Amino acid sequence: MKVVVLVGGVGGARFLLGVKAALGLPAVGEPEQQSEHEVTAVVNVGDDVWMHGLRVCPDLDTCMYTLGGGIDEAKGWGRVEETWSVKEELAAYGAEPGWFGLGDRDIATHLVRSRMLRAGYSLSEVTEALCDRWRPGVRLLPVTDERVETHVAIDDPDTGEQRAVHFQEWWVRYRAEPEAHAIVPVGADEAKPTPAVLDALRDADVVLLAPSNPVVSVGTLLAVPGFRTALRESAAPVVGLSPIIGGRPLRGMADACLAAIGVDSTAEAVGRHYGSRQDAEGILDGWLVHTGDTAEVPGARVRAVPLLMSDVDATAAMARAAFDLAREAR
Amino acid sequence: MKVVVLVGGVGGARFLLGVKAALGLPAVGEPEQQSEHEVTAVVNVGDDVWMHGLRVCPDLDTCMYTLGGGIDEAKGWGRVEETWSVKEELAAYGAEPGWFGLGDRDIATHLVRSRMLRAGYSLSEVTEALCDRWRPGVRLLPVTDERVETHVAIDDPDTGEQRAVHFQEWWVRYRAEPEAHAIVPVGADEAKPTPAVLDALRDADVVLLAPSNPVVSVGTLLAVPGFRTALRESAAPVVGLSPIIGGRPLRGMADACLAAIGVDSTAEAVGRHYGSRQDAEGILDGWLVHTGDTAEVPGARVRAVPLLMSDVDATAAMARAAFDLAREAR
Repeated sequence: MKVVVLVGGVGGARFLLGVKAALGLPAVGEPEQQSEHEVTAVVNVGDDVWMHGLRVCPDLDTCMYTLGGGIDEAKGWGRVEETWSVKEELAAYGAEPGWFGLGDRDIATHLVRSRMLRAGYSLSEVTEALCDRWRPGVRLLPVTDERVETHVAIDDPDTGEQRAVHFQEWWVRYRAEPEAHAIVPVGADEAKPTPAVLDALRDADVVLLAPSNPVVSVGTLLAVPGFRTALRESAAPVVGLSPIIGGRPLRGMADACLAAIGVDSTAEAVGRHYGSRQDAEGILDGWLVHTGDTAEVPGARVRAVPLLMSDVDATAAMARAAFDLAREAR
Repeated sequence: MKVVVLVGGVGGARFLLGVKAALGLPAVGEPEQQSEHEVTAVVNVGDDVWMHGLRVCPDLDTCMYTLGGGIDEAKGWGRVEETWSVKEELAAYGAEPGWFGLGDRDIATHLVRSRMLRAGYSLSEVTEALCDRWRPGVRLLPVTDERVETHVAIDDPDTGEQRAVHFQEWWVRYRAEPEAHAIVPVGADEAKPTPAVLDALRDADVVLLAPSNPVVSVGTLLAVPGFRTALRESAAPVVGLSPIIGGRPLRGMADACLAAIGVDSTAEAVGRHYGSRQDAEGILDGWLVHTGDTAEVPGARVRAVPLLMSDVDATAAMARAAFDLAREAR
């Protein structure tokens, strides 16, 4: 079975662990083996940013480290056994921005990536090269090789004046506290999905939307012209998993993002925001919500199952429920 | 007194500590204070190299770290309390070159520098910005803002074929073992000294040649068109200190470099290689050799004094001897 999963960072990476387990693919640290199943993750790039002259791709790296066994599991992002010498030294130089901490081990990834990008390799090629080391067991595809960066319009907490900041500044520096007047994937208009992404959507047997942020993760994928159409034209059923559990995001600050686009933080509102394939621009055939939540998404089949990714087994059960719903839904 | 010192890396940096001590300037870690004396170091850039996408300037950094109290004193280069996480990770990626180890703390310097260079700042401006932190108490001037990199023609130890490698590859990877058929400061032809360097030479009361490598350190300064002329036209006496002690270089592998340009590893041969100001292209008014060594350099006053930089006091005595000889020599 060819499975395509649309993902952001931490939540998406954990969901991919469950998808692999549900398909009987080797767990982290187990040797690679032949399988009839193939998992492709289409990864958000809107969080990507140039930082201290390095190209940082938080979502791609979180997926790569998580699936490759290099993640700091407690935090959910960054490298395990990380050290922070470079960060201390950059602070001693007064190098801006001081609010974004890059770990030493992590920096090596960004050095390899930045050097390859400057030499003319595409982000897809770079990601493949980095994955040669990490062997994630999932094909990780950036949605586009063009530069797309999510920016957020806020009132500056210090000056009160409205300004647009990179998503990372809003998220990491300001912890999403200033209200987002708008969230814009800058560059998306002129971007296009990579050929590998379009091929994966066309050849998929099933497409899953991880319970990732509907605005700045999955939303950024959908903002790349041609992606939504390719998804809608795919013969594969499309099933989404709600990131909203009992009116609250599973993790992160997705509610702040949803508020910015006028969508309530409920499983139903997010399902309707995606819309069913019967809608003009909708994408869903099925929508999984958490046990106890309810949703009506006209044209899509909705089911309630436990959606807490408390461990790999629980996450694998979510993936299996999504596969079941996919079979029924289209 | 305005003192200009021509320097390379480790030896040059240590000599600068002695020059400061001889002039009563604050030692490392002491507070800055007003002084009638001003020391300017004109620093070799031929060792500079792009490594993993970072601009590394070994001689500038060795001077900066040594005078600013950040040097690994045991090694003579690199940062004290250094960590090596990035290096380990780059090796895990198989990133080339593997033979050049960048420490984590050191990398922060290169990140700041590379980012500023890519933003359009000159190496002089970058160096000044970095020195804002380190407060070396000496003005550190790269000889040129243009890119000049020393390359060495060798027979490849693996293939036997002749190829040109960056000086760092010859020096660090191959420990200067393959014979150097030629040593060429690539880019020097099109480089020019910075205005600050020319001003410093014009305004100097005395110019000292540190006991640095005569070929790849001081030699690279002299290879920048206009530098030698500016030095010869300066009203200041020029005194050099021999890096060759009893027929052997004080440190490093200077003899391998001298052999490449057909100069014997003796104090006299190096003095004659620099030549006296009375020669067509010569620069020296005085030449200090180590006690027990002898040299005749026609047109220059030669004196033998202890030239072992065993501690700051001994090095300060060398600087004082150089000042004395300068006063007499012109």
